[in-house]
Amino acid sequence: MDANNKAMLLAGAAAVALMTLAPAHAAKALAEKPTVGDLVKASKPSDWRPLDPDNTVYMDLPGGRVIIELAPDFAPNHVANIKTLARDNYFDGLAVIRSQDNFVAQWGDADEKTPRPFKNAKAKLKAEFTVPLANDKRFTRLPDPDGYAAQVGHSNGFPSARDPKTGQAWLVHCYGMVGVGRDTDADSGGGSSLYAVTGHAPRHLDRNITVVGRVVSGMPLLSSLTRGPAPMGFYDKPEQYVPIGRFRVAADVPDAERSKFEVMRTDSAMYKAVVEAQRNRGGPWNKVAAGHVELCNAPIPVREAK
Amino acid sequence: MDANNKAMLLAGAAAVALMTLAPAHAAKALAEKPTVGDLVKASKPSDWRPLDPDNTVYMDLPGGRVIIELAPDFAPNHVANIKTLARDNYFDGLAVIRSQDNFVAQWGDADEKTPRPFKNAKAKLKAEFTVPLANDKRFTRLPDPDGYAAQVGHSNGFPSARDPKTGQAWLVHCYGMVGVGRDTDADSGGGSSLYAVTGHAPRHLDRNITVVGRVVSGMPLLSSLTRGPAPMGFYDKPEQYVPIGRFRVAADVPDAERSKFEVMRTDSAMYKAVVEAQRNRGGPWNKVAAGHVELCNAPIPVREAK
Repeated sequence: MDANNKAMLLAGAAAVALMTLAPAHAAKALAEKPTVGDLVKASKPSDWRPLDPDNTVYMDLPGGRVIIELAPDFAPNHVANIKTLARDNYFDGLAVIRSQDNFVAQWGDADEKTPRPFKNAKAKLKAEFTVPLANDKRFTRLPDPDGYAAQVGHSNGFPSARDPKTGQAWLVHCYGMVGVGRDTDADSGGGSSLYAVTGHAPRHLDRNITVVGRVVSGMPLLSSLTRGPAPMGFYDKPEQYVPIGRFRVAADVPDAERSKFEVMRTDSAMYKAVVEAQRNRGGPWNKVAAGHVELCNAPIPVREAK
Repeated sequence: MDANNKAMLLAGAAAVALMTLAPAHAAKALAEKPTVGDLVKASKPSDWRPLDPDNTVYMDLPGGRVIIELAPDFAPNHVANIKTLARDNYFDGLAVIRSQDNFVAQWGDADEKTPRPFKNAKAKLKAEFTVPLANDKRFTRLPDPDGYAAQVGHSNGFPSARDPKTGQAWLVHCYGMVGVGRDTDADSGGGSSLYAVTGHAPRHLDRNITVVGRVVSGMPLLSSLTRGPAPMGFYDKPEQYVPIGRFRVAADVPDAERSKFEVMRTDSAMYKAVVEAQRNRGGPWNKVAAGHVELCNAPIPVREAK
């Protein structure tokens, strides 16, 4: 493989190559355009917002830290309960107990005989599958149509959807989104069992699950876990469990130990450019622009703050 | 966690639960319906077709066998070349050299200084990004709209799309699809560098890459690989490479060593029912039916033949 081959699939070379398509479909080479990376480089500090330590949790796994931004606008009661669980040290010493290919990694208490007791947190809460539109004050709509929802876009850094007819808004199950495991009853979850999406967006779960946030850093620690051998990807032996060291609210962590990340403001002009850079990619590597971006293919840039 | 919690996210319990939604959005509980698993159990032998050993390749990794069904209707020249590469033992002893989170795992020759020579296979071929509609004789259209293509559906077990205006058909980059790595020039790939999609469908690659097939078994062997530390997920040390033992055309493997798999016929009435079971899931676990299925969320059942 020559050196250029390392640029395969996603090349960033400067020269504009000529296209070689069948004459019937001959088209001009796509003009070169800024990539998402170029736009991130060109962005201003005002295009970004820091993670709010009061609504960020750190889950320490053997391989490193998973950072989850919580979304109180969409699941206020579950977010509060998850923070209480964290402050009760509920998750510390529990484990990732499930990794199902192209679906989710899930963590919580695997001990069915002597389950970990709850202290100040609740075991179950009323479902927060959707919220009234009025709760979602920071929605920026994508112009692109979506098969699953009347409107889709981003709400302060989270992929979301809404239906003006029902007056509901909800978070969307894109890659990296975090939801609340539950039993058959809609109100049987409370946040003590959580999962992150590790595969293609399982959009049928939208409005059927309380979604509480998004992994902003550390997805590979969950997505590359060995898939569980039992049905639905559960691990079937304790030695397969991936132990959670500590699970803490960022605000409770000494400043020196905090991870400092910023998320691009999804209501910014720069973010609009980021989405367009994905919707219609430039040449020379790309030969055909998609002319569309599906919600879960719209990247939400995250970077370490300086 | 009690025993029922193991059924979280995807429950199969029989009882119909009552919904507890806010009165304004109160709705009937969804009727129970057959799941994809139920339909697979109820299917007849005629709903299935065996993998064609002449168009199936086995890639043996340390963790097991990855089985790829090739799609000669969509990339006849690349499929023929990949089979020649296999018969030249080109891939044997090469490695998976890239694992980029939420994108692809890629394999081929990492040695830039002394690349493995080609014997009977070609290093480069003319791109097969699309084919004329007439080449795709086994298309079953999904009624669901798609943002990226005028029409989507399945072509003999492969997710595909088409545009009657341009007269083109192409394979779609869903999870598990296999494509040909290339450099900036459209005609710079030949099949000696291949990748499988391991994340959310990167649909912007459609019509920009020659897609040659689909992993029908063994995806976890690729999707759970440690992500590479170098840009775009490349491994940067030889000890990180995941070695390919043998890469063979199934037809060349002694019958006793062959993996016998069947794929549900995507032009069958049973497959139509499978798609509907995903589009509108039944209760009691599900509370809201999606009313839509995105192409890459339509499962293509595969099973071991008896």
